[in-house]
Amino acid sequence: MKTIGFVGLGSMGLPMAVNLGRAGFAVTGFDLRAEARAALEAAGGQSAGALADAFSGRDAAVLMVVNAAQAEDILFAQAALTHLSPGSTVILMATCPPAAVAALAVRVEAAGHALVDAPVSGGVVGAEAGSLTIMAAARRPVFDAVKPALDAMGSKVVFMGEEPGQGATAKAVNQLLCGAHLAIAAEGLSLAEKLGVDPERMLDIVSGSAASSWMLKDRGPRMLESDPRVTSAIDIFVKDLGIVLEAGRDAKAALPMAAIAHQLFLSVSGRGLGALDDSQVIAAYRALQGRDAS
Amino acid sequence: MKTIGFVGLGSMGLPMAVNLGRAGFAVTGFDLRAEARAALEAAGGQSAGALADAFSGRDAAVLMVVNAAQAEDILFAQAALTHLSPGSTVILMATCPPAAVAALAVRVEAAGHALVDAPVSGGVVGAEAGSLTIMAAARRPVFDAVKPALDAMGSKVVFMGEEPGQGATAKAVNQLLCGAHLAIAAEGLSLAEKLGVDPERMLDIVSGSAASSWMLKDRGPRMLESDPRVTSAIDIFVKDLGIVLEAGRDAKAALPMAAIAHQLFLSVSGRGLGALDDSQVIAAYRALQGRDAS
Repeated sequence: MKTIGFVGLGSMGLPMAVNLGRAGFAVTGFDLRAEARAALEAAGGQSAGALADAFSGRDAAVLMVVNAAQAEDILFAQAALTHLSPGSTVILMATCPPAAVAALAVRVEAAGHALVDAPVSGGVVGAEAGSLTIMAAARRPVFDAVKPALDAMGSKVVFMGEEPGQGATAKAVNQLLCGAHLAIAAEGLSLAEKLGVDPERMLDIVSGSAASSWMLKDRGPRMLESDPRVTSAIDIFVKDLGIVLEAGRDAKAALPMAAIAHQLFLSVSGRGLGALDDSQVIAAYRALQGRDAS
Repeated sequence: MKTIGFVGLGSMGLPMAVNLGRAGFAVTGFDLRAEARAALEAAGGQSAGALADAFSGRDAAVLMVVNAAQAEDILFAQAALTHLSPGSTVILMATCPPAAVAALAVRVEAAGHALVDAPVSGGVVGAEAGSLTIMAAARRPVFDAVKPALDAMGSKVVFMGEEPGQGATAKAVNQLLCGAHLAIAAEGLSLAEKLGVDPERMLDIVSGSAASSWMLKDRGPRMLESDPRVTSAIDIFVKDLGIVLEAGRDAKAALPMAAIAHQLFLSVSGRGLGALDDSQVIAAYRALQGRDAS
């Protein structure tokens, strides 16, 4: 596996494609936005002006798109799959519902290709550093064949099982924890505010105690800022906790904490604030507690 | 402030009393259990056979008891307060509802003494190492006077404000986060189990990603053991999340995540499992998901 078409050159896809190229793979990137293709060229990569050209004759295609619907559209509606070399591999790295990934895998396999379910965790920082965690599920020989490519993008590549969808499930569990931890950090800090305890001092205490979480330490300070920068938007968790709950619903699994967290993110998005930093889930609590942000 | 009566020589109180003695304070310990008093003596401390003797003529009294009701019983029903030196200080270190602490402070002050609201975080390990986090609220001169004693028991003594109850509030926020993080770790791991993803592998991933929390890393492994040792019981969080929700209710603050977490701990306790390790909140999820622990 040497030649790779890479679709989706966003804030994460671009550095991932660059890292693949640096590791010796012949990468051809595609994105609908010309400036994204130009950015890849500027970073020393090659880009294609049409989807078919990015896929044509490649050994593998990486999809770092927004969701399962985009992946399906590219592979089937736009028929990009027909341009790949026979018996090639599709590596789906977007965050998608497990059932949707499993269904895509069946169709990809029916077309004579293999699908690797390989969502990632680690954000833009991890994508740039090549230190992503990659949760991969595929038939074992397929996984072994793509492992060097995954290693070029991540520092922790975990084999989750042979059934496509098991990677997506792992990502869903990861996002359940991340989203719920964000909501809890906001609940705790908003309670401190409501009860007249200095939230900065409170944050300092819980950041160093058994009450700590990665999200609390990373997003807690921004919960207390008036206009924090955006590293990941409220609407990402509207989407991702939606995927978590869809996975739970499909399996008839009750997820009460994730369900409440989702409602809080929905509330903020519904107030027109979905593009704000996800730390601003605290706006839902301030509304609840009658201390609305102005 | 040199002489201290110390009531409540349990798994945390005993090492805290010992650390006070090592720091040069003249400590007299009391506990209803003779073996606890003997343990203090064996550790080089002094104990009293009666509550009045532990308090008689002391500059300060530390209460490391179970709850606010015990503190009230000791100070007023058993009239221990009348034995302290005039103008002495009561240091209340148990986890209590903020409103109960504020009410006790009024009565202690009316009797001519001062109250320091000083709950702790850090568990038995922190108590033994003298590395507790202590969240203290008291009139500033009173706080300054007891600070050396608090420093003997904790490595992080944080002044939360001049109103007794503000320390208890900080502890409540801390416990909100701890309890909710436990429930979320259980929710995530039980979802992995339900969806056929290896929970050990899942735990390894989320322990090193943005999904991590202190509780996940500490209790997650025990959630996957069949008969884990008990470091802190389910019923402690039944009590502590109850205090959190009482503090929220008193202030009319909505705490939806903490409320759900409390229900899950209650469910496990209600099945007769309240003495199990708090990691076993996952038993509530296994019951919900139809994968009941046998």
